Amino acid sequence: MYFTNKDKPEESLEVGVLIVGAGPAGLGVATALKQADVNDVLVVDTREIGASFLNWPRQMTLLSPSFHSNSFGLTDLNSIDPATSPADFLRTQHPDGTQYAKYLKAVADYNELPIRTGVHVTSINKEDNQFVVTTNNVKIFAEIVIWATGQFFSPRDNTFPGADLALHSSKVSDWSDLEGDEFSVVGGYESGLDSALNLVELGKSVSLYSRGEPWLSDHPDPSRALSPRTYDRLRDIMKLSDTAKNLALFKNTDIRRIEENKGWWILYDQDDIPSVSPTRPILANGFHSGLGPVDK
Amino acid sequence: MYFTNKDKPEESLEVGVLIVGAGPAGLGVATALKQADVNDVLVVDTREIGASFLNWPRQMTLLSPSFHSNSFGLTDLNSIDPATSPADFLRTQHPDGTQYAKYLKAVADYNELPIRTGVHVTSINKEDNQFVVTTNNVKIFAEIVIWATGQFFSPRDNTFPGADLALHSSKVSDWSDLEGDEFSVVGGYESGLDSALNLVELGKSVSLYSRGEPWLSDHPDPSRALSPRTYDRLRDIMKLSDTAKNLALFKNTDIRRIEENKGWWILYDQDDIPSVSPTRPILANGFHSGLGPVDK
Repeated sequence: MYFTNKDKPEESLEVGVLIVGAGPAGLGVATALKQADVNDVLVVDTREIGASFLNWPRQMTLLSPSFHSNSFGLTDLNSIDPATSPADFLRTQHPDGTQYAKYLKAVADYNELPIRTGVHVTSINKEDNQFVVTTNNVKIFAEIVIWATGQFFSPRDNTFPGADLALHSSKVSDWSDLEGDEFSVVGGYESGLDSALNLVELGKSVSLYSRGEPWLSDHPDPSRALSPRTYDRLRDIMKLSDTAKNLALFKNTDIRRIEENKGWWILYDQDDIPSVSPTRPILANGFHSGLGPVDK
Repeated sequence: MYFTNKDKPEESLEVGVLIVGAGPAGLGVATALKQADVNDVLVVDTREIGASFLNWPRQMTLLSPSFHSNSFGLTDLNSIDPATSPADFLRTQHPDGTQYAKYLKAVADYNELPIRTGVHVTSINKEDNQFVVTTNNVKIFAEIVIWATGQFFSPRDNTFPGADLALHSSKVSDWSDLEGDEFSVVGGYESGLDSALNLVELGKSVSLYSRGEPWLSDHPDPSRALSPRTYDRLRDIMKLSDTAKNLALFKNTDIRRIEENKGWWILYDQDDIPSVSPTRPILANGFHSGLGPVDK
């Protein structure tokens, strides 16, 4: 629910730098600005600090490893402030979403970052030399706006006919909640493999459909090839015959349509060849841009 | 066996920079020098490239995680050349010794580093403005000597009475080779916990004796506190009752003497309190300095 002018007198604020998004990017920039003595900063977010991470599936962890190598002068890959380390704070190499949100909050608290939550940006305009940012409850005039919202709350769940019949992987709060023994996963990058591996680790059997064959890619960009941790998990599963038999990877299979029929789901690929799933298909095809009103 | 002057005429060499040790430190420095166009370099080693890693127990892996984040400009923690990544080359997050040695050899080959193996340094002297380095088979005159030998072949296996009755953890080539069901491990840092966790993962039960309580340390130096990966492994074992019961950690217990008696081993702590082990105790108390003839 958004407030209107009728609900209360409109509040307005002036700031030097407005940062939209209280996730790692926004809080990291706010911390860096603070350390550079830029103090006229405000961070706003629709939700609480680290909300995307708090909404991750329980089993999901950061793909990049955390290591507390600050004494060698190296930054923890998951750090948002080089003087801190999630590995050191949480004592784990792959924090889960709840843990990582706790780390983000600790950095925000320690640095006393100025944050307002519950602020949803609806439009941004440039007037003269400043930005006029309209939100649900406050109008903000800013010299500089830094857009740092993530994509987690913009799943690509409507990109082909019947996509809405599937369950987007980002909407699962715990893989063990899903009923059934046989699952279909659409998408072969990290979120697809993470979904499939979690289900197989829970004793389920999974058919995974991927456009290409990302598990064979050696692209140097970690977002285009699998992470070393995922290769390790995949090898662990393939090594044991009783888990290996539960994972089938279908390459070069582009699911383009899903239909539901009497409690069954039928997935059609680029050649209109159908596959049948006894459970709601898992859609792991990523996210739309999180740019919102600044996407032009 | 070392050659003497009687075996063959003594060979002698002159180099600008002599690097002693063909492990990560030596090869990393040689690579950096090559990239800085310093070409009058020679790397020598008693053993083959990466010999320490080739002699690791089969189950042992690097504690620092590898991640191929070069496209973000970050160096893989285990890289010896910032343009390369063990994660990308080996597709695993924690390479084992054989894999890491393969990576070291690949970097050495690619950079065409000048390496002589089978060269054991016996003494180093400074004469006028150069170093005179005597080895088993060649005399080397060098302007600069970089000592880059590791400690792996200098285990601390004689530091208290009866220490030689134990099996040093670095001498295990495969934990599954050890016969018996109950083991004692002396040492609570990384090599002690790695020994204990490997044995418990193989279904054995382990009593681990540690001087302090390193598993509770939050020292920022990763060599003084446990690595995040080790915490993760420890938690995984403690989480399941059938593995948790197989691991007993004894803190503030400084084993100072070991005796053998009719196929049993007795370990005495700082208060002369004995513990009995039905198998040869595992000594995981680290290494002597690898400085050899340059240790003054």
